[in-house]
Amino acid sequence: MSRPLPAGATIGILGGGQLGRMLSVAAARLGYRTHIYEPAANPPAGDVAHRVTTAGYDDLPALGDFARSVDIVTYEFENIPTSALDALEAQCPIHPNRRALAISQDRLIEKAFLHDLGIATAPFAAVDDAGDLAEALDEIGTPSILKTRRLGYDGKGQARLDSTGDAAAALAAISGAPAILEGFIDFSREVSVIAARSLSGEVTAFDPGENVHRAGILRTTTIPARLSEAQRTDAVFLAGRILNALKYVGVMGVEFFVTRKGLIVNEIAPRVHNSGHWTQNGCAVDQFEQHIRAIAGWPLGDGARHADVVMENLIGDDIDRVPAIAREANAAIHLYGKAEARPGRKMGHVNRIVRR
Amino acid sequence: MSRPLPAGATIGILGGGQLGRMLSVAAARLGYRTHIYEPAANPPAGDVAHRVTTAGYDDLPALGDFARSVDIVTYEFENIPTSALDALEAQCPIHPNRRALAISQDRLIEKAFLHDLGIATAPFAAVDDAGDLAEALDEIGTPSILKTRRLGYDGKGQARLDSTGDAAAALAAISGAPAILEGFIDFSREVSVIAARSLSGEVTAFDPGENVHRAGILRTTTIPARLSEAQRTDAVFLAGRILNALKYVGVMGVEFFVTRKGLIVNEIAPRVHNSGHWTQNGCAVDQFEQHIRAIAGWPLGDGARHADVVMENLIGDDIDRVPAIAREANAAIHLYGKAEARPGRKMGHVNRIVRR
Repeated sequence: MSRPLPAGATIGILGGGQLGRMLSVAAARLGYRTHIYEPAANPPAGDVAHRVTTAGYDDLPALGDFARSVDIVTYEFENIPTSALDALEAQCPIHPNRRALAISQDRLIEKAFLHDLGIATAPFAAVDDAGDLAEALDEIGTPSILKTRRLGYDGKGQARLDSTGDAAAALAAISGAPAILEGFIDFSREVSVIAARSLSGEVTAFDPGENVHRAGILRTTTIPARLSEAQRTDAVFLAGRILNALKYVGVMGVEFFVTRKGLIVNEIAPRVHNSGHWTQNGCAVDQFEQHIRAIAGWPLGDGARHADVVMENLIGDDIDRVPAIAREANAAIHLYGKAEARPGRKMGHVNRIVRR
Repeated sequence: MSRPLPAGATIGILGGGQLGRMLSVAAARLGYRTHIYEPAANPPAGDVAHRVTTAGYDDLPALGDFARSVDIVTYEFENIPTSALDALEAQCPIHPNRRALAISQDRLIEKAFLHDLGIATAPFAAVDDAGDLAEALDEIGTPSILKTRRLGYDGKGQARLDSTGDAAAALAAISGAPAILEGFIDFSREVSVIAARSLSGEVTAFDPGENVHRAGILRTTTIPARLSEAQRTDAVFLAGRILNALKYVGVMGVEFFVTRKGLIVNEIAPRVHNSGHWTQNGCAVDQFEQHIRAIAGWPLGDGARHADVVMENLIGDDIDRVPAIAREANAAIHLYGKAEARPGRKMGHVNRIVRR
């Protein structure tokens, strides 16, 4: 067992959004300070952090100063430029590790990694040009979806194909970027597992949650998910295999499709995950603290839930419902301190505790 | 119903200790920023606050700047000098109000206030000199305890009298400061109620907790307290009467002795209270959020508990037990980020969730 990070040490967090904010509070609860690195001014995490650096990911001197001021570095999002990681890693450890980041940054590498582990995914094929796409359509058919390998946002970088005749338009829609074609999955529901692996290799997972998306954005997570006992065990087991294969340290979110043929991994996120917010009000140790425990060399919390929870994201104008939600019994409100409620912007969430 | 403080507003908190720290986190969760005012450098609350001012309570220019930078002011402790309150109140509202502070700052005024409300307390009498003490001993007898009217710390400013012969020594022990003599109470247990009153006059209370002290310091609070249904109702009702009588806004801790003749109020604290820390893991809305809701013009949370909890304070060397506690199931750890573990110093607490 590694020596834990000493009390009063500083954890650097790349990204100052709501995930960084909630990580910062959890770090404080375990006696640590945080230093937030974020290009945008007045980040949500800055309201609850010891220190904030406002600088871009291309500002290597600022990254160096940041890394020298902290004891370890973690992150709240996966699209960190390689050059920034190089600059940081020269000064101090980064958890989760770069392999996890590299895999989650590229849909093709992610799918190939899962495939090599023998874990089921949607059928996929690499597409770099029109010839590749024609071959991929032969193999996978339609309906299918062409996605850039590197992450787009808000459904950008994706194009649906309902017939082979859509090929040219789909390639144009993603501007010919390196891509993969994914077959559509016929699934009954989507669930996710928030799992953690410690520095000493201990692995644990919270109970799977059932997710509902709208317009590509998570709306609700319900605990427990409607899964058979075998499916539940399978989901946790698959998440554990992914963490172990990566020698991962920290919390990971693993999204699954539930199909008639079993569980299929949709995607992995090498960080705390929106579908794990329910743990704040359902568990003694929430996902944010679990992540800090993992990267700081603590034993993991046991993850057992003491209450059922339905988590609802407050997106855009949903923030106007807060006064009504504040009058509900058993509703725990978590706002992110964002000034402007733009459409699609995550402004907060509510954990509704279901008494058992 | 008053208009709530708008999202993004700043709440000023006098005092940067652990109560200020946990208030700051709760304020952020409701979308507010905090500005901590604290004489000592590197206060625990500073790790989770938007801004910190390090200045004394006699620094009137600093107090003025602080008050102008915030929308409302609250506090985490009751011994704020009157001159500081005057300087602040000239700029912005302070909750809870000054009457509550004045009462809790002076044991005689507090006892007289409760007596006027018809609420039972220990027998008491004002003692300004040896003549008063002789009269008070005639009336109250021994064993009894001579306490300075203004708060001492760690049992300072108190002297026990086992016979009238102890009078001179007791007066000397408190250096002849204005005092009260209190009769000893024969009680079976101590319980406390954490109650809240909103800007619109709504009152609510969390379930009473049962407190165990050692060497004058709270060690554990157990929820639920061992009380009859009548005692439970009585405790909550008495707390509500106190809040209403003061037109109080915010959270108050009311400590009771349970005696054969009924409940006796030991003392009131016009702030969040150590015996309410259990609410962090037992309720959807904890005492810190309840206080912020009250002073920010929100509706109060309903205070119902979804789990039983035993709260244990981690005092001084208790901090060395954290690695073992971290391995317990259902133990929620809350550390305060204090660098040095001095004897008697509150370093953190653990909420052990008891599944129901």
